[in-house]
Amino acid sequence: MSSDSWKTLSSETILDHSKYLSVEDRTVQLPNGRIIEKWPWVITPDFVNVVAVTEQGKFLCFRQTKYALDGLSLALVGGFIDKGENPMQAAKRELLEETGHEASDWVHLGSFRVDPSRGVAMASLFLARNAKRVADPTCDDIEEQEMLELSRNEIEAALDSGELKIVAWVTAVALALRHMDA
Amino acid sequence: MSSDSWKTLSSETILDHSKYLSVEDRTVQLPNGRIIEKWPWVITPDFVNVVAVTEQGKFLCFRQTKYALDGLSLALVGGFIDKGENPMQAAKRELLEETGHEASDWVHLGSFRVDPSRGVAMASLFLARNAKRVADPTCDDIEEQEMLELSRNEIEAALDSGELKIVAWVTAVALALRHMDA
Repeated sequence: MSSDSWKTLSSETILDHSKYLSVEDRTVQLPNGRIIEKWPWVITPDFVNVVAVTEQGKFLCFRQTKYALDGLSLALVGGFIDKGENPMQAAKRELLEETGHEASDWVHLGSFRVDPSRGVAMASLFLARNAKRVADPTCDDIEEQEMLELSRNEIEAALDSGELKIVAWVTAVALALRHMDA
Repeated sequence: MSSDSWKTLSSETILDHSKYLSVEDRTVQLPNGRIIEKWPWVITPDFVNVVAVTEQGKFLCFRQTKYALDGLSLALVGGFIDKGENPMQAAKRELLEETGHEASDWVHLGSFRVDPSRGVAMASLFLARNAKRVADPTCDDIEEQEMLELSRNEIEAALDSGELKIVAWVTAVALALRHMDA
């Protein structure tokens, strides 16, 4: 914890909804000494997203509905990190479950906070290249989803036209393309 | 509302913390007819982030501490959308308040959901070019922040090395660079 970081002086759970959401009221101290009470802190599970590219250079995506979205979105492989997993393990598990693929070339694109003040979750983003089908998908997500294999041009067009509707998905694709071009 | 979208059948506020956070329990129906009760929905204010580039081609950023981060992060102009504002108006106001700059060339890079299932907020991201100092900053944010003018090479290095620690900030910079190169 850096000396530039805020301190947490106390914390009280004010909503314990489920494994998907809890909320705490915290008393926090800024680096300049100022103290703020009743600072809300939102806890949802940390998650991963994976930009998966096949041996043939195709980007594995889904067309999917999500509750927070109007209509279909292009979506990435991803999900919550299970207890005992690190982000890379979760990314490999989600890729296999959701697409039946394994990949030989993994890059951690970064881990970023969802919200600078309320926390919410950490998003860990990966690029998985040389992905190869080794099994049938076994995903038990509640959403129905159609798997797509997009060309580089198609995923760039989707990125630029707003077809990826979630901040972390846009980030993952944009960072993956930067990495592939570097 | 598309027929591919989920439906909200009912909604009950279970936490009314402040203008910064409330939580609802919702009963939702998937496009396939399945009904799920007690679906948590998190409401925090919609916000904007702005990648501001001066007439001299410098990127206006801050070094800033945030509660959810360990240590300093490179940060962008940004803030909550006030009542009665649209995202572009909020972006122009935040740029003026936080940096004392106005810009003549604005691009809406996109508006994205923070969380695909819980909602949380909409993030509207902008590129503002030809920014020019017209006033002193009047920002009353609780965080102390140091304003920086980064070169294109410096902001690219910051992006690639993880110095931007929040998902929306990474997205805004990555999309802004794509737009400037298009």
